[in-house]
Amino acid sequence: METPLEKALATLVLTFHKYSGKEGNKFTLSRGELKALVKNELGLGQKMKERNIDELMKTLDKNSDDEIDFKEYSAFLSALCMAYNDFFHQDGK
Amino acid sequence: METPLEKALATLVLTFHKYSGKEGNKFTLSRGELKALVKNELGLGQKMKERNIDELMKTLDKNSDDEIDFKEYSAFLSALCMAYNDFFHQDGK
Repeated sequence: METPLEKALATLVLTFHKYSGKEGNKFTLSRGELKALVKNELGLGQKMKERNIDELMKTLDKNSDDEIDFKEYSAFLSALCMAYNDFFHQDGK
Repeated sequence: METPLEKALATLVLTFHKYSGKEGNKFTLSRGELKALVKNELGLGQKMKERNIDELMKTLDKNSDDEIDFKEYSAFLSALCMAYNDFFHQDGK
């Protein structure tokens, strides 16, 4: 049986592929695919403006190929988790 | 409303804290806490032997303080996701 943690990891991977397969290279996110993912799958993305999407794309695209590969996406999610985790530290003080 | 991706990220953070708070520093995983997390929350952990836990601990503990902090845990989960993601690439070929 799948544990909650395994299910969560699967969701991270499946969400990437839900968008990466839409256009161009099916294993990477284009700017348009990243925008759709962030807007549809993350509450914080709903208020993002075009300029913010550009900034996010530039920040995540470590190898500057104008695509977000799975490794770059994974670093993005880690950063979101770290931000969330910081709340625990603040609560614990 | 929480999206599946947001719920997944919350599960990663909450799972860490479910174990990190058990003993010692409540914001890091000791060897015993890591062992419990891996054995209970990951199917692959059920067959791990003491030697494998030692190896995992050594691999994850980048700053060699005998504790796994959230950043180190996050790198571990990213690696698991990357391994899972590789299946998509194999299927796509």
